[in-house]
Amino acid sequence: MSIENPHIRQGNGYGRGNWKSFGRQYVRPCVGSFHHAVAPVLLLGQCITLLPVVNIFSANYRTARFKLRSFRCIYSLVYLALTGIYCTFFIRWYIRKGLNLAYFANCIYMVVVYLSAWLFFFIALRWQSILGAFSRCERSFLSDHYRRQSKGRFALGWKIRFTGFAIFALALVEDWLNYYSAYQSNIVQIATCNRTNVTVWQNFYLREHPHVFHWLPFNGFTIAITEWINRCMRYTWTYLDIFIISFCYGAQFRYEQIFRRLVAVQGIACPTNFWHDVRMDYVAVSELVQVLDAQFGHLILLACANDMYFIATQLFNGFQRRRAIANYVYFWYSLLLLMFRTIVMLYVGSGVYAASTSPLQLLRNVPSKHWGIDLQRLTDEVASGENVLSGKQFFFLKRQLILAMAGTLVTYELVLLDQVKKIPDTSTDCSYF
Amino acid sequence: MSIENPHIRQGNGYGRGNWKSFGRQYVRPCVGSFHHAVAPVLLLGQCITLLPVVNIFSANYRTARFKLRSFRCIYSLVYLALTGIYCTFFIRWYIRKGLNLAYFANCIYMVVVYLSAWLFFFIALRWQSILGAFSRCERSFLSDHYRRQSKGRFALGWKIRFTGFAIFALALVEDWLNYYSAYQSNIVQIATCNRTNVTVWQNFYLREHPHVFHWLPFNGFTIAITEWINRCMRYTWTYLDIFIISFCYGAQFRYEQIFRRLVAVQGIACPTNFWHDVRMDYVAVSELVQVLDAQFGHLILLACANDMYFIATQLFNGFQRRRAIANYVYFWYSLLLLMFRTIVMLYVGSGVYAASTSPLQLLRNVPSKHWGIDLQRLTDEVASGENVLSGKQFFFLKRQLILAMAGTLVTYELVLLDQVKKIPDTSTDCSYF
Amino acid sequence: MSIENPHIRQGNGYGRGNWKSFGRQYVRPCVGSFHHAVAPVLLLGQCITLLPVVNIFSANYRTARFKLRSFRCIYSLVYLALTGIYCTFFIRWYIRKGLNLAYFANCIYMVVVYLSAWLFFFIALRWQSILGAFSRCERSFLSDHYRRQSKGRFALGWKIRFTGFAIFALALVEDWLNYYSAYQSNIVQIATCNRTNVTVWQNFYLREHPHVFHWLPFNGFTIAITEWINRCMRYTWTYLDIFIISFCYGAQFRYEQIFRRLVAVQGIACPTNFWHDVRMDYVAVSELVQVLDAQFGHLILLACANDMYFIATQLFNGFQRRRAIANYVYFWYSLLLLMFRTIVMLYVGSGVYAASTSPLQLLRNVPSKHWGIDLQRLTDEVASGENVLSGKQFFFLKRQLILAMAGTLVTYELVLLDQVKKIPDTSTDCSYF
Amino acid sequence: MSIENPHIRQGNGYGRGNWKSFGRQYVRPCVGSFHHAVAPVLLLGQCITLLPVVNIFSANYRTARFKLRSFRCIYSLVYLALTGIYCTFFIRWYIRKGLNLAYFANCIYMVVVYLSAWLFFFIALRWQSILGAFSRCERSFLSDHYRRQSKGRFALGWKIRFTGFAIFALALVEDWLNYYSAYQSNIVQIATCNRTNVTVWQNFYLREHPHVFHWLPFNGFTIAITEWINRCMRYTWTYLDIFIISFCYGAQFRYEQIFRRLVAVQGIACPTNFWHDVRMDYVAVSELVQVLDAQFGHLILLACANDMYFIATQLFNGFQRRRAIANYVYFWYSLLLLMFRTIVMLYVGSGVYAASTSPLQLLRNVPSKHWGIDLQRLTDEVASGENVLSGKQFFFLKRQLILAMAGTLVTYELVLLDQVKKIPDTSTDCSYF
Repeated sequence: MSIENPHIRQGNGYGRGNWKSFGRQYVRPCVGSFHHAVAPVLLLGQCITLLPVVNIFSANYRTARFKLRSFRCIYSLVYLALTGIYCTFFIRWYIRKGLNLAYFANCIYMVVVYLSAWLFFFIALRWQSILGAFSRCERSFLSDHYRRQSKGRFALGWKIRFTGFAIFALALVEDWLNYYSAYQSNIVQIATCNRTNVTVWQNFYLREHPHVFHWLPFNGFTIAITEWINRCMRYTWTYLDIFIISFCYGAQFRYEQIFRRLVAVQGIACPTNFWHDVRMDYVAVSELVQVLDAQFGHLILLACANDMYFIATQLFNGFQRRRAIANYVYFWYSLLLLMFRTIVMLYVGSGVYAASTSPLQLLRNVPSKHWGIDLQRLTDEVASGENVLSGKQFFFLKRQLILAMAGTLVTYELVLLDQVKKIPDTSTDCSYF
Repeated sequence: MSIENPHIRQGNGYGRGNWKSFGRQYVRPCVGSFHHAVAPVLLLGQCITLLPVVNIFSANYRTARFKLRSFRCIYSLVYLALTGIYCTFFIRWYIRKGLNLAYFANCIYMVVVYLSAWLFFFIALRWQSILGAFSRCERSFLSDHYRRQSKGRFALGWKIRFTGFAIFALALVEDWLNYYSAYQSNIVQIATCNRTNVTVWQNFYLREHPHVFHWLPFNGFTIAITEWINRCMRYTWTYLDIFIISFCYGAQFRYEQIFRRLVAVQGIACPTNFWHDVRMDYVAVSELVQVLDAQFGHLILLACANDMYFIATQLFNGFQRRRAIANYVYFWYSLLLLMFRTIVMLYVGSGVYAASTSPLQLLRNVPSKHWGIDLQRLTDEVASGENVLSGKQFFFLKRQLILAMAGTLVTYELVLLDQVKKIPDTSTDCSYF
Repeated sequence: MSIENPHIRQGNGYGRGNWKSFGRQYVRPCVGSFHHAVAPVLLLGQCITLLPVVNIFSANYRTARFKLRSFRCIYSLVYLALTGIYCTFFIRWYIRKGLNLAYFANCIYMVVVYLSAWLFFFIALRWQSILGAFSRCERSFLSDHYRRQSKGRFALGWKIRFTGFAIFALALVEDWLNYYSAYQSNIVQIATCNRTNVTVWQNFYLREHPHVFHWLPFNGFTIAITEWINRCMRYTWTYLDIFIISFCYGAQFRYEQIFRRLVAVQGIACPTNFWHDVRMDYVAVSELVQVLDAQFGHLILLACANDMYFIATQLFNGFQRRRAIANYVYFWYSLLLLMFRTIVMLYVGSGVYAASTSPLQLLRNVPSKHWGIDLQRLTDEVASGENVLSGKQFFFLKRQLILAMAGTLVTYELVLLDQVKKIPDTSTDCSYF
Repeated sequence: MSIENPHIRQGNGYGRGNWKSFGRQYVRPCVGSFHHAVAPVLLLGQCITLLPVVNIFSANYRTARFKLRSFRCIYSLVYLALTGIYCTFFIRWYIRKGLNLAYFANCIYMVVVYLSAWLFFFIALRWQSILGAFSRCERSFLSDHYRRQSKGRFALGWKIRFTGFAIFALALVEDWLNYYSAYQSNIVQIATCNRTNVTVWQNFYLREHPHVFHWLPFNGFTIAITEWINRCMRYTWTYLDIFIISFCYGAQFRYEQIFRRLVAVQGIACPTNFWHDVRMDYVAVSELVQVLDAQFGHLILLACANDMYFIATQLFNGFQRRRAIANYVYFWYSLLLLMFRTIVMLYVGSGVYAASTSPLQLLRNVPSKHWGIDLQRLTDEVASGENVLSGKQFFFLKRQLILAMAGTLVTYELVLLDQVKKIPDTSTDCSYF
């Protein structure tokens, strides 16, 4: 059994170069760290203007930092400025038209997405310190005696990247379905209204963004800007869940490593030193969870509140009939994707808690003759159930939360069943503004 | 007071022969084990194609295993294949007729039952390892100092078998009532529709399974196959609860044995060795509970969700009037049986938790001069309240759960009270398809 | 500080005589025990046929026991037999008239009260063992060092008797109001229906008990029997709450004595022996609470369920208009009394839990240099929060329960607000049967 | 690291003089105490007749006490007497007019505010003992080693005073909006009813207080008294929340000081003595929290119940349309202020719990070689989660409570959505009485 000192073997390659060749012979010290695992997901976010941090692919996490005079940062700031104007026009437009349930939901969506973009910007400012917290925790987990147990399992990087890109791909499909559905209903509308002076695409964009083209001229540039803003906003919401999933995996993986190490030594008499090391590792992960809870609690709160609100609204809309099959498919795909995304996010989030309590049974199996102050403290810390992420402590990410949310949603829907009324079909409405 | 080493006295008969004569002089080592207790209940399941495991009556649990080239396995696979086709036709049929609440409930029932059949098949694959987990836990419980305390009480085998067969018998009565009720309404229907070209039974089967006889010829063979599939599906749902009850009793009984052993030594000064043994036994049962929770959590989740959904649906249907007295009796018998079954399942399941905390007061009564590290740890483990079965940790099987479920159901029903509308009476509908 | 051995000083008067003179010079050893405190409340119950135990005023609790050949027992059995017949007729009558919400509530009331009467009969059979459990716990609490702290405070006897008799008196007023209200509506009815062949009282009893006088002759004897049964049933329900309050006070008072003893030694260095004694006393009360929970859990469950159901039903009825001022006064007095009774019962019941955790802060104030194994265990036991009465573990009697119940009730009433319809006014209905 | 004895350095200025010059060289011993911090907030309360305590600005907390023969006390008693009469007339008036939802809410408001005034009067009687409890807890927190850590942070005084006066200022704006809104609707009413014999102000007061001027002559004196009573009542409700916030900050700040002290010694080996002192400080704050919970629990219960009730009522009224823009602005400002006030109160209240658990992670980081009985006990006390304010233990002020309240409110509003009916517009009602 290995009871080495949990110091990092810092290879001489530490601190320079990018990971361009994954198939090299020696393992770089940074491989396996959260910084390394999350980099492609960060790049994905930067495509939609979020998290403007430079050097995310650098081997040394210390070089990854917010830089005001970088392209990424300017890109983000331009987006934030334009979107601010866009949202203001959008909300003014809807308030003028009179707020109903669907319009109100749209405004909420605007505000939440814009708020998220700013929150991500502020997270970018603190990104270096967050990576620092991860690095402090990961110091001993990147050493050999933890690496050995993780052989033949999905690495942290794979988990984070696969989940992130898979959800993003599903969101891309949703976006395409949205386009297709809107395109179809435009063809119907042109036929109904006997429009001959506009092309389908003109009609499409005029109806999609009336609040923009009421004020701005209708040309390629304005369409491009509007569509860019729209795409970014749409994916920001999805990215919020992806980002939460990423750091939850980051914390959960460390607890699982401790669990696997304890499984490996089951039945073997371990020296006091070993238990001290395990305890310090466990406390380090708990500290990381606490830092994440403090730093990202508002993100979790925002994501859960937003997802809940939209599931409730969309379920309520689900009782209505749709005309075209494309609208029907889009609606249900969109709703099911939203529910899937929410459940995955809550499941991974509550997985941190589940992983933090998993070593309990193993600790109970340790014979009393090996008992000591470190084992006692470790058992207390594992059993306390305090190592859990939360939405600013208003709720805690445990499995039971998913059931509680589902129960609340069902109650709301049943109560609202009386209120289902037909919202007028907008596909035959011939006015633009 | 007995402080023997908790090793099994392995008789020379261990590993061969079946239990044909229960009245023999010497007690076989396997008698009292979960493997021995659950065997007749498994056989019951195998009659309805579930759990295709061979050698379930063998004295050695290691011989009980899944065998692909056995009659039981082929029987199960034929059923799974045919039922897959049956369900597809069934659901297509209902989707074509347009989904209402009652049809939707039927489709859910189909999917859940078919899913359960597959889950049981996968459990059969892992059955040997599950029996292994039971056996590891039961090693010391089959020794003399535990046997002595259990004298004059219901043995584990009696509890599991009696409960299982009693619930199955009640389900048989329900099935007969269903037949009788459907038969009566067919006689009414024939009289109403002036049918002369069909016998009552022909009419009966045509109306029961329109989705089958719309596609297949109407003859004895197709009727037999359809009825066989239907009977198996119907009892699978009941068997799900019976199976959960069985393994819950299996874990609960061990906690109760520890409790009785502690009661027996109350007020006697016990050596440290004794407390160490008791603690190891307690930890072994807790480990078993954890294994059961991991292996059967999805079964518990499925059973609870399904039972809740059907109680809610049926209660809602209960507000409607029925024409014939037979329908009335069948409906209420069926609903009450469902509620009884659900409550028994939840009660026995939460009994594991209740039994796991029962030794607490006895441990508190131990004088402080006998206090030691093992007593301290045992008290912590008993008081922690972590030894509980759950539905994949979404909910925990405690007594309070029953109240929470009942409260939720009452709320849903009260909210739905506004939605009660008359579903058209199908007994006078003269079309077959 | 007194650290005497917690043995009882058994006075020579122990075991004989009744407490006829409360003003004697020396304190009898039984004074202060639960047996002594609850005796008048038991007598009250025996007036309405419940708890047929003899020698309840005897100084020695061991002589208080169930005796089959006593007047009290025969009285109870006659009541149980007659009420069984009465209830059968009552329920048959209502089923024939067709069940509506009000009739259904009446039948539930009948069944619950009759069930309570049988439960009290079975409690009478076990009364001696229950008093035994109290006595085992109270052994050291009746000694001097606990008596001294209780000086100048309300004794246990006063608390139990005052609460019991006060609630009973309020129920007597309710009964009178019921009579008065029914009498008034009879006068109205006679005037409306132009009855001249019946007196007011004849009309009164015929309308009150139609299910009896439909089958039996109308004479003084049958009226007396019917009224006796009715009075007993009516007070049984109230008595259920009084009885629960009594034993809850019995357990709560002991925890308070421990608290007062700890307050008295605050800041004083106590020997290990003292903490051992206090811990054993605390464990003894906890054991008593566990016994009470096991013995009376079903009573608590029944009382809470019944009270909740009737508050919900009556609140729902409260939205209807009443004609006579007497009916109005009776209705609101009755509803408020029911709510008051329920809240007092839940408050006293949850007081056991509150009292059990009260010593925690005092134990934390003990300096660490006096720390020892007994103090550690006592702190753990106090902090565990397990010393709580429950309704068969479906719910636990804590303060939060009252809020949860109130919240559930408000939700139900708001949901049912749609269902309020006018129940026909029965005061002008001229048919008897 | 400083491990001094936590005794107070009592300066020679202790016990005399007021704090008139905040900029003096030496820090007075009382500066930083709750007594010092809360004084201006108390004065604010005394302006609206609450908390008649004299010498609140005295440096020695022992001189601050209730004095019957003081102006403040007589002022309060006059208010209590007059308001008692006022409320009686008010409620009689509304009962005569027939109670609807809005009138009932007004009566509840009256009763709650009058009750609060009495509760504050009784708190004034016990004020000296409450300050005593604070002082006992604060003894060591005013010494240097705590002061040092608090440098450069908001002092307790600033927090309490800023929050209190800010909320009060917002309430003043609300009051002005109320006046303005009522004034506008009076002008409308006079125009509608063609009133020429009354001025706007006459009309204003006659319609605002019909229950007063129906009985009393209409002159400057009666108007002044009525308005004075009304203003005091209106601000009493706001003051209830301000007062709760004040003492919650008082307790929370001490936990934060302990946390900051522990942060300062992180990684330093501390002697046993140090941990003993920290534990005693922690227990002292916990004791203070317990005293506050016992003394002010009913205030918290009253404030929460009242706020919840009015948010529910006002949200329900929010579905109705308003005629004048002034009414609209007043209504939403008032509702949002109420929600803001409630959330701030609950947030600060639950901050006590959050602050009490904050040292947990730091204690876990302490290496096991420094472990000792005091660290063990301190960890247990921090982890227990018992240091929490409550509403008489019916609910506990934790963050989750805010979510539970919000969820309950949403359910109630959704259920009540069916009941929204137009309340007749009173602005065109021309009758006065």
